[in-house]
Amino acid sequence: MYGAGDVRIETVPDAHLIESTDALVVVTRASICGSDLWPYNQMEPGETGQRMGHEFIGVVEAVGDDVRTVKPGDVVVAPFAWSDGTCVFCQAGLQTSCLHGGFWARDGIDGGQGEAVRVPQADGTLVVLPVGEDDALMPSLLTLSDVMGTGHHAALAAKVGAGKTVAVVGDGAVGLCGVIAARRLGSERIIILGRHPDRIALAKDFGATDVVSERGGEAVERVRELTDGFGAHSVLECVGHGQSTITALSVVRPGGAVGRVGLPQQEAIPTTLTTFFDNVTIGGGPAPARAYIEELLPDVLDGRIEPGRVFDRVGSLDEVPDGYRAMNERESIKFLVKF
Amino acid sequence: MYGAGDVRIETVPDAHLIESTDALVVVTRASICGSDLWPYNQMEPGETGQRMGHEFIGVVEAVGDDVRTVKPGDVVVAPFAWSDGTCVFCQAGLQTSCLHGGFWARDGIDGGQGEAVRVPQADGTLVVLPVGEDDALMPSLLTLSDVMGTGHHAALAAKVGAGKTVAVVGDGAVGLCGVIAARRLGSERIIILGRHPDRIALAKDFGATDVVSERGGEAVERVRELTDGFGAHSVLECVGHGQSTITALSVVRPGGAVGRVGLPQQEAIPTTLTTFFDNVTIGGGPAPARAYIEELLPDVLDGRIEPGRVFDRVGSLDEVPDGYRAMNERESIKFLVKF
Repeated sequence: MYGAGDVRIETVPDAHLIESTDALVVVTRASICGSDLWPYNQMEPGETGQRMGHEFIGVVEAVGDDVRTVKPGDVVVAPFAWSDGTCVFCQAGLQTSCLHGGFWARDGIDGGQGEAVRVPQADGTLVVLPVGEDDALMPSLLTLSDVMGTGHHAALAAKVGAGKTVAVVGDGAVGLCGVIAARRLGSERIIILGRHPDRIALAKDFGATDVVSERGGEAVERVRELTDGFGAHSVLECVGHGQSTITALSVVRPGGAVGRVGLPQQEAIPTTLTTFFDNVTIGGGPAPARAYIEELLPDVLDGRIEPGRVFDRVGSLDEVPDGYRAMNERESIKFLVKF
Repeated sequence: MYGAGDVRIETVPDAHLIESTDALVVVTRASICGSDLWPYNQMEPGETGQRMGHEFIGVVEAVGDDVRTVKPGDVVVAPFAWSDGTCVFCQAGLQTSCLHGGFWARDGIDGGQGEAVRVPQADGTLVVLPVGEDDALMPSLLTLSDVMGTGHHAALAAKVGAGKTVAVVGDGAVGLCGVIAARRLGSERIIILGRHPDRIALAKDFGATDVVSERGGEAVERVRELTDGFGAHSVLECVGHGQSTITALSVVRPGGAVGRVGLPQQEAIPTTLTTFFDNVTIGGGPAPARAYIEELLPDVLDGRIEPGRVFDRVGSLDEVPDGYRAMNERESIKFLVKF
């Protein structure tokens, strides 16, 4: 990406092993993330482009001398942050704060929207998938790299559980995965706040029981009407806008929790004293997707959850620029790159 | 209180039963709260005074026809919010959000810094104490009305537990009770941020293992030095100032939690994106002190905790104005009114 709206497919030097803890992965599936649309809309034009992509599955081509858990030929999924798997934060299940980790497509690290990636800290980062590289489950498995783990993280941060009413703010891929996660964690009442018919239909398939298509104050009113006037126990903020955060904080009931996973577009949380007086908990952040893969993988393999349905468009690497455009214009929920 | 610095003892009409769910309580002990110092510093002068006080113990003198759990002669403690004990929020243990409850010394309800109080929703509000009205444990029992429950609430919101390092921001009565709560909940490493020698000494007695007397950025540096550079797992914000909140959010480690119980002196929480990227949880609010009395009472009765030691001055009702002054000038930690 060279600036807002300017996505180019270019030939770059081949990825190759550098550290003894690296793996070289030939990408077989990748995707565009809703968070990629922030720079797609706002990035200053520049001479030096920015690699893109942080969601990918691939086949290991080579590994460094110190890599133990993956070998050439393995089909692997990479979470959106790479991590050593051994530091104090990785051991606590917070791999996004790994002391020796980082994120794709920055600081000289390859992006996932490319043919091959040097994966640092391969043992800590990659998870071997027990399927072939063209398995029919690939779309759902690919969501384990980010959006499904992120929806799950939002649900955990919002303290979703049986008997609780959940509100999901945002009907993008993360919001939709948030619905899956809320249902999976036992919620029977899931309100989705969104307005795109195709997404709403999918949300209902995933377990949403109520739809609020109003915005702002009207949406808040509507959620309160649906919840005896109190608001939802658990609110998943899956957008990151100031307005969506205000909405999330306004539809949570006293004693409830808001799980934030939408990348915030402002520094401060737009709270009021009501958040304090109502004893509302605010949690969340970038999901430690790596921590959740083991938990979510069996459900994907068994078909109990089908997060891959968020991909409503598939294309080749050459079609990625149009994928950005389509997602940005809400023509597509999420674009899958098939190599 | 008629305005900042203007506290007067006045004769008012006798408190009496109004509703059938009321109890009339003759106050035997009351106290001044740190939160009473906010109006003591900021209240606009006015013709009509404001009743004060929300922490008291007393003897029941009369009860309405529908009161079942307390009777004349009972020694009772009142939490700082009154509540019906039956609504959905009371049943969830969040009595500060009671649908039919409220707070003392406002909306026509008596304040605790007075000789008698009409207690609405007596069954939900009051807890009978199994001691005489002049028991030596009175100071500690009185803290169950607010500061000990509030410290406990901060510790729960900050997810204190065994093996976790705790930082307590503020060395007032609530911060000191936060130290007690953190120790009681299993923390072995408790850092208190404060600078008053008498309070620090008490904090150490209560279980604080480290003292940080610096302020602002230097305090943050010092806490990080004490915690391998990462910060504390659990941070108790027991002040409510913008600066203390910034400090609290700056000394929490990734994946940690900040429990806020200091009455916020500003609408928004002064967060930055670091709070999000570090997956910091922010919780807390007014403590449902009523919910915690049953849990904390046995420890007070057994002498396992001694929160009453935060009272370093005792006086009569006539001495309350000077008690405000003394607490405001940090001459006293907390003032106990003995009737």
